[in-house]
Amino acid sequence: MRRLYHFCLQPASRKLRILLKEKGLEFELQAENAWERRAAFLALNHAGETPVLVEADGTTIVEATAIAEYVEEVYPNPALLGATPIARAEVRRLVGWFDGKFNTEVTQNLLDQKILRRLNGHGGPDSQAIRAGKANIHQHLEYVAWLVDRRRWLAGEDFSLADIAAAAHLSALDYIGDVPWDRHAGAKDWYARVKSRPSFRPLLADQLAGIAPPPHYANLDF
Amino acid sequence: MRRLYHFCLQPASRKLRILLKEKGLEFELQAENAWERRAAFLALNHAGETPVLVEADGTTIVEATAIAEYVEEVYPNPALLGATPIARAEVRRLVGWFDGKFNTEVTQNLLDQKILRRLNGHGGPDSQAIRAGKANIHQHLEYVAWLVDRRRWLAGEDFSLADIAAAAHLSALDYIGDVPWDRHAGAKDWYARVKSRPSFRPLLADQLAGIAPPPHYANLDF
Repeated sequence: MRRLYHFCLQPASRKLRILLKEKGLEFELQAENAWERRAAFLALNHAGETPVLVEADGTTIVEATAIAEYVEEVYPNPALLGATPIARAEVRRLVGWFDGKFNTEVTQNLLDQKILRRLNGHGGPDSQAIRAGKANIHQHLEYVAWLVDRRRWLAGEDFSLADIAAAAHLSALDYIGDVPWDRHAGAKDWYARVKSRPSFRPLLADQLAGIAPPPHYANLDF
Repeated sequence: MRRLYHFCLQPASRKLRILLKEKGLEFELQAENAWERRAAFLALNHAGETPVLVEADGTTIVEATAIAEYVEEVYPNPALLGATPIARAEVRRLVGWFDGKFNTEVTQNLLDQKILRRLNGHGGPDSQAIRAGKANIHQHLEYVAWLVDRRRWLAGEDFSLADIAAAAHLSALDYIGDVPWDRHAGAKDWYARVKSRPSFRPLLADQLAGIAPPPHYANLDF
């Protein structure tokens, strides 16, 4: 059986869980706390980071972007990167936006500070980072709204890895109650459409020990 | 004429300059100080970051990973991502290693602290970051040596985007004299091979105003 080593609140792991489901691929999840630096996991990935994908034949694919591109190449239907080089460039631009810019400006300031620092023993959150993350998220939600005002999905007329990457970050932040949906109706409408996809359902059932999500987290009509 | 908006010491920009040269593609360089947030540049890229590639017909490709994948798709010869999905996964894994892990652990602690903070007016370097960067670089140079002890190039028998990404970071750090080559003979041998490629030569002629590189920077026999 195909196996994905993941951490349930990590956006990079969530992105791949949604992607594999959208492709109709079966897999089992293996929870991995990368910060524990388990020897058997380090042997799979010298970088010591989730996600890691192990195919049924043992083929091991490491690093979130490499895994997403591999999955798209080997299991091309349905296409989630776009049909032409220019369409794919737009999908990848937005994946880069969320996994790069959004990650630095928002996710690291909120999720990493509030959850990862506690789990890996680095202590409590830095209040300056929290303030920055809470301030920065607004411009990104406005950008989501701006895009879906012009297109059906973030990168164009088709649902793509760009929507998946954005929803992976926002869903992890939503788990800790840090997405101000009420002030961003356009982004909320888009997220409701992503959230209602069958590929998204397993994420809504996630439970991290000791950290319960807010009631609206799993609610499709939030 | 094809145009690349770049910053000469930015690894992401250097990666694309080498890639375009390896592909035999002509282009002109447009220096862009992204931190100045020039309106015409922000219109090209809402994220406000270099590199940006503009094709002769005006097609604009944004974000370093998206540009590299686009160039490989549209100009496939010579192949620089690998011949099979698994070979490409290994190239992309190592590109992710350098643009992700190495960037966070080394480049941001040294290059961003010493050069970018000064240029964008954020003040002098944080000495704790400098110490961390100088400590972290050793394990990465050992990893380069470990890889080329087992393979001709970083990702396998063929020169690839993995070598380009790694050399882009290391060459920028070499410009500020922060690569301890003398303690890492294996990595130095590999870098000497990359450095002697014609695609690399333009980078060795780079001059940032007010910041001269050390004498060995442009020397092929360093």
